[in-house]
Amino acid sequence: MADEELTEARVAAARDAGRGVVLTTPVLPVPDLADRLGRPVVVKAENLQRTGSFKVRGAMARIAALGPAAARGVVAGSAGNHARAVAHAAREAGIACTIFMPIGASITKADACTALGADVRMDAPDVDAAVAAARTHAEASGQAFVHPYADLDVIAGQATVGTELVEQVPDLDTVIVPLGGGGLAAGVAWAVRAAHPRARIVAVQARACAPWPALLAGTPPADVPAVPTLADGIRVASPDPLTRRLLDGALTDVVVVDEDEIADAVVWLFETTKLVVEGAGAVGVAALQQPELAPSLRGPNRHGAIAVILSGGNIDPGLLGDAIRRHETRAGRRLVLRARLDDRPGTLAHLCRVLADAGANVVDIQHLREGVALHFGQTAIQAVAQVRGPAHGEAVIEAARAAGLDVHPLGVWPS
Amino acid sequence: MADEELTEARVAAARDAGRGVVLTTPVLPVPDLADRLGRPVVVKAENLQRTGSFKVRGAMARIAALGPAAARGVVAGSAGNHARAVAHAAREAGIACTIFMPIGASITKADACTALGADVRMDAPDVDAAVAAARTHAEASGQAFVHPYADLDVIAGQATVGTELVEQVPDLDTVIVPLGGGGLAAGVAWAVRAAHPRARIVAVQARACAPWPALLAGTPPADVPAVPTLADGIRVASPDPLTRRLLDGALTDVVVVDEDEIADAVVWLFETTKLVVEGAGAVGVAALQQPELAPSLRGPNRHGAIAVILSGGNIDPGLLGDAIRRHETRAGRRLVLRARLDDRPGTLAHLCRVLADAGANVVDIQHLREGVALHFGQTAIQAVAQVRGPAHGEAVIEAARAAGLDVHPLGVWPS
Repeated sequence: MADEELTEARVAAARDAGRGVVLTTPVLPVPDLADRLGRPVVVKAENLQRTGSFKVRGAMARIAALGPAAARGVVAGSAGNHARAVAHAAREAGIACTIFMPIGASITKADACTALGADVRMDAPDVDAAVAAARTHAEASGQAFVHPYADLDVIAGQATVGTELVEQVPDLDTVIVPLGGGGLAAGVAWAVRAAHPRARIVAVQARACAPWPALLAGTPPADVPAVPTLADGIRVASPDPLTRRLLDGALTDVVVVDEDEIADAVVWLFETTKLVVEGAGAVGVAALQQPELAPSLRGPNRHGAIAVILSGGNIDPGLLGDAIRRHETRAGRRLVLRARLDDRPGTLAHLCRVLADAGANVVDIQHLREGVALHFGQTAIQAVAQVRGPAHGEAVIEAARAAGLDVHPLGVWPS
Repeated sequence: MADEELTEARVAAARDAGRGVVLTTPVLPVPDLADRLGRPVVVKAENLQRTGSFKVRGAMARIAALGPAAARGVVAGSAGNHARAVAHAAREAGIACTIFMPIGASITKADACTALGADVRMDAPDVDAAVAAARTHAEASGQAFVHPYADLDVIAGQATVGTELVEQVPDLDTVIVPLGGGGLAAGVAWAVRAAHPRARIVAVQARACAPWPALLAGTPPADVPAVPTLADGIRVASPDPLTRRLLDGALTDVVVVDEDEIADAVVWLFETTKLVVEGAGAVGVAALQQPELAPSLRGPNRHGAIAVILSGGNIDPGLLGDAIRRHETRAGRRLVLRARLDDRPGTLAHLCRVLADAGANVVDIQHLREGVALHFGQTAIQAVAQVRGPAHGEAVIEAARAAGLDVHPLGVWPS
């Protein structure tokens, strides 16, 4: 049965396969979380891994395990991290690589694969179709299909995250790991439990696609809708029986987090730890911020360190910009106000001067002439200004009123 | 003269002072830069340091060196990293701390100091006034003034960045370091030369405030204007004689970088290395991207590794958002177009449908009714859409024209 199991030998081989390419990513303390939980908290920064995610570990392991058969090349279907990882591993091995991506995939990610020498085919309507096209191509061409998670060598590669963690964190007690297809979670659970049989392994899913709680309970999961999520890296609706078998009994808990919690975790991580982490990579921190999870981790019965695996950092800059903008609004750093002005030269200049003198930086201004009830000879202005926080925003409004302006702050919609 | 010099003993004492608080920050390889330069390139990630910058090293060293005099507390004037570092070091030492900040300082940074227990006074008109107020307060209160760079113990603390670098990078040849007041550059140059006398030390200034080339040439620098810069952490117009003396003859080269290069480096670092780095921290990478510097680092005569010090990561989220937005525009990921439509129901829906079918995501739309030459019964629309790159933008325009729409892409202004 060794062929169908994770074994020490297989994980050791996976580690050998990665040497010279896979980085031993740093483990960094997070004092803010440690203070809150009363225990050491560290992050395992796989966002700093080659190719920007842990996936390169599995790809290197799989290609090495193929042996001479690898010479014909490899093929994968993916919209993101797995594609880039396989392309990178193939270049390191000096073999051909074909990547099937969906039409809507990020150009940056496709370009990264092309730059690594992969033959990128970008015509599948969605990810599932890209994976199917990759399988078909593999059968027709004799190239080896590299599955993103349902493969023991791939899982052995991801297990090396856990092997390193055990070496880097001597008093490891709890590991929090993102859960999608299950390759990372299965590998890490195996490696951590091999050293610490009583360690807690908490896996985290995004609510937009969370089949695992039902799968592990043995109940058929409800139809999982194909909702877009910031955590697209773990959006796997129907995981393979292999990872289901490996994860059966391996997890202490599965926690589900919402989109808002994921977005907040992405911004929190970059503000507090100075790490760029993609949505799927940040779900562990999102889980730790939940009041429900925290008590079970605090308590006097628990000792030792909590390690959160930040699985990847490949977030689209535009998406990160959106997350920041949203965060700025929620933090009260954007003041939206309406003003009624006499429609004559000088009134707009006066408004702008008063806002500037109060320290507010106007970033948008428009005239409202429809849907507003004004006297004849009046005009309405809607302005957006950067302020330093809610108290500053209130001070700006007060200053404007003290200067004789008829201004009204707008709340956040929908409130 | 040992009291006025950097010595091995002083730097060793600084390192002891930091134990338990100062992190040995990771050194991370940057394959993209290594490929381009044909030599190993690493970054020393001081953005991952406690408090988000190297400054905590100097603050810990200074407080330790004060001995029993520290018990009365410490005081500093700063708008940013130094303030937070002194507040953190004071909390660790269990002593009082007073921080003077300018009125416009980031609320986030002020709040961080308050959360660390510091007494924050935010009423100075600018940074210089805050520093002056801190000095005055120190004289009146008997608290020790902690200078941001003109202090040998502070410099010895910053030198520990170099000490670690020498231990972490055995074949160190070139170090690229941000240059403002000169504390970090002087300390690092000393520590690196102590181990590698022939190492190259390249310091980098932001053009907005670059007095050092003239200072080191012995010519009086031209008046340095108080221009705002993304690299505000190294905006020091008149460095102190102490760092001038220490840096005399210590630098192989001083490179000056522009604002655009700094902004590009910030975005490049977060996209490529997944590290959040502030403007001042990114100037070394900006310098490496310059075609002028690269040749002297490449060449067959140079061997060994290039280490770039990323000195800090405390960038305002809003500023990072701006840098991303600018980058998205320059990368051709924002298509701005104008369209002439018949002013009747359905034409706007048609435009939106055509853009959507071409994969463009509309993020802004407005009607232009002034300053446009239209037939009666026509209206003009200006739309902004996210696209995947310049080629995709052109494809969107072609698709719209094929659908019978009268659309005109707008170039980037000013071009």
